[in-house]
Amino acid sequence: MKTTIPLPRPSPSRLMKRLDELGAVSSAEDGLTRLYLSEAHRRAAALVRGWMEQAGLETRIDDAGTVCGVLAGAPGNARRLLLGSHIDSVPRAGKFDGCLGVVAAIEAIDILASRGVRLPYAVEVLAFGDEEGVRFPVTLTGARAVAGTFSPASLAAVDADGITLERALRAFGCDPAGVALIGRQREDVFGYLELHIEQGPVLESEGLAVGVVTAISAAQRSMLEFAGKAGHAGTVPMRLRQDVFAALAELAVAIRAIALRQEGVVATIGMVDLPRGAVNVIPSQLRCSLDLRAASDALLAEASRAVAEAIAAASQAHGVGISQRVTYESPATTCAPGLQQAFAEAVARTGLAPRFLPSGAGHDGVALAARWPIGMLFVRCKGGVSHHPDEYVAAEDAQLATDILADTLTRLTG
Amino acid sequence: MKTTIPLPRPSPSRLMKRLDELGAVSSAEDGLTRLYLSEAHRRAAALVRGWMEQAGLETRIDDAGTVCGVLAGAPGNARRLLLGSHIDSVPRAGKFDGCLGVVAAIEAIDILASRGVRLPYAVEVLAFGDEEGVRFPVTLTGARAVAGTFSPASLAAVDADGITLERALRAFGCDPAGVALIGRQREDVFGYLELHIEQGPVLESEGLAVGVVTAISAAQRSMLEFAGKAGHAGTVPMRLRQDVFAALAELAVAIRAIALRQEGVVATIGMVDLPRGAVNVIPSQLRCSLDLRAASDALLAEASRAVAEAIAAASQAHGVGISQRVTYESPATTCAPGLQQAFAEAVARTGLAPRFLPSGAGHDGVALAARWPIGMLFVRCKGGVSHHPDEYVAAEDAQLATDILADTLTRLTG
Repeated sequence: MKTTIPLPRPSPSRLMKRLDELGAVSSAEDGLTRLYLSEAHRRAAALVRGWMEQAGLETRIDDAGTVCGVLAGAPGNARRLLLGSHIDSVPRAGKFDGCLGVVAAIEAIDILASRGVRLPYAVEVLAFGDEEGVRFPVTLTGARAVAGTFSPASLAAVDADGITLERALRAFGCDPAGVALIGRQREDVFGYLELHIEQGPVLESEGLAVGVVTAISAAQRSMLEFAGKAGHAGTVPMRLRQDVFAALAELAVAIRAIALRQEGVVATIGMVDLPRGAVNVIPSQLRCSLDLRAASDALLAEASRAVAEAIAAASQAHGVGISQRVTYESPATTCAPGLQQAFAEAVARTGLAPRFLPSGAGHDGVALAARWPIGMLFVRCKGGVSHHPDEYVAAEDAQLATDILADTLTRLTG
Repeated sequence: MKTTIPLPRPSPSRLMKRLDELGAVSSAEDGLTRLYLSEAHRRAAALVRGWMEQAGLETRIDDAGTVCGVLAGAPGNARRLLLGSHIDSVPRAGKFDGCLGVVAAIEAIDILASRGVRLPYAVEVLAFGDEEGVRFPVTLTGARAVAGTFSPASLAAVDADGITLERALRAFGCDPAGVALIGRQREDVFGYLELHIEQGPVLESEGLAVGVVTAISAAQRSMLEFAGKAGHAGTVPMRLRQDVFAALAELAVAIRAIALRQEGVVATIGMVDLPRGAVNVIPSQLRCSLDLRAASDALLAEASRAVAEAIAAASQAHGVGISQRVTYESPATTCAPGLQQAFAEAVARTGLAPRFLPSGAGHDGVALAARWPIGMLFVRCKGGVSHHPDEYVAAEDAQLATDILADTLTRLTG
């Protein structure tokens, strides 16, 4: 373990002030709502761009609406590290999700500048505009564009008002035809680092300010449909029923046991629709969602197999038809061991024990990992709450994470 | 066991023809819908009254809209047996629920008349108009009136169109003030017999045409409200969740086990409402119904206690608040042992083994049992289906049950 390096700060409270200021840029009066390519997004992008300029970065807004700010490296070294996160939000969001990573990246550059540190490699800070995937039925548009994996077919995606992504990009001042052409050269970039709030309760429950992300979980979403037989709640004996809710209850208990059995696996039944349900009728039809995530593809496959067996068992036990339709699948994204290690060593230098944990939520890094090594540092949030106005990160934690990011930058060689 | 008595039939197919004819009297084009005091009810009552007249009964329509037809007994014997069922229906109903009991009662009188049998006691056939309780938020109005337990406060009950029960009675030609005054003298009546479709699958599953009802189950309905904690489906580990649906699933499995443990107890969760549910959000709020029935008050109390314990256990295990609000309670109605025995002996005389079973559904007899001994005979229905156009009783079963009813009448002494 190396010696802790005390880092001078440009202004201890600036980080939180900027998060407050950025958090106030909203389409709605009652809380933060900032959808991709909205007017609020435009104002937020301008604000972030100004802070990048203040930090001495060379800025532009690319054809996907991403704010890009470049700090040149040592002469003759074209190698570049990407830093960033996103500035779009879900409706009625919190002000830390995404924005913390963008503001902290700029702040880290400032911290190093104030200490006279000159990195040997170039840094590009990126403020993506489409991580939440709320406005259009596409997501990670900015990160995919940078990674060179944007599919032009996505330009036809339509929002709730019937506006295509293509038209919205043009209204934002972007050239839609350019989105698929702005991918960075694979060899010019050596990695991507992102600081993000955990959006879960693990760090708080363990009394830890930060954690090093090992992987972004593999995920599978599906819809289950149950078909049983209606009947009078008073007249059909228990053993002669084909009760769809009884089948779901048994299945849900089995699925929970599957997830509890294996660290890093989570399963959620978040949506249950029992149409024409009545207090005195045995239910005969229902549908529900199943969200299954695991820290690796192998774990997800194993959990998914176990769920299929549980479905067959519940179907047989209750004489109820159960069909499963997978609606979304995403493989796990592994954080690069070298970048995990770099973050962990910087954490250790603050005197804290590094905690490694998977990310159950998706992030911009999923798209960038298609091209480059990625690393992520999680910051503790209160009560695990995110996507809600109550989302909260303590100023000390945000500053500590920013210091760790800055320290990590000084150790990378490019 | 006594000898089987072959009974001549006035017209073997008339019973089913009358059920078809009565089943066609509907407010709706597409299926049978006949609500209390509707125009369809008026036409059905006239039809039934005509059949009663043909059978030699002295008829009237009382102030609750019940068609009443009296056959005098032996001179000097004022004691009377009540027979009947109801002619109202749920929306999109089957044609046997209720009507079978009314048509069969008239048919039984005809069978006895065709054999020259003169009963020593009087018989009053009753075709009630409000067993389903669908139009007004009151039920068993006709039977309560006969039993002398009708509460005049119910006259203020309002239907979906804002019409009071009082106004609807008046439009039907009844005197609303009379409903509370038409109770039969307790000492004038010695019992009530009803033939009804089972509305469940027990008889069919055992290959039996008829069954003798032991009791109308005790019932308790309640609403359960769950309060947990929302969270991201990907980021909150299983052990840190306060997932209301996971709590309900565990509770539902426990409640089913409670009902399976004891013959005669059934439990149904027929309504589940998970507001603002989303595939990727741990659910934090839900409400559901619980319908609990048992063949006796003691069994219901025991099941209800076990459910309360299961609620406490699920609440504790999941860190989820669960409140239970009882919305309806009805004690068990026991069928009189003497009348059960009379039906059972008549069943045995046909060569069949009597099957005793509780009724999970409520019936007119619940109100009449407040004053007099009641007896019920169930008739097998196809698939246990009721309250649905597919409701079906085989002609042979209906005729056999009618024969058993007629035979039973000959054995009672009044």
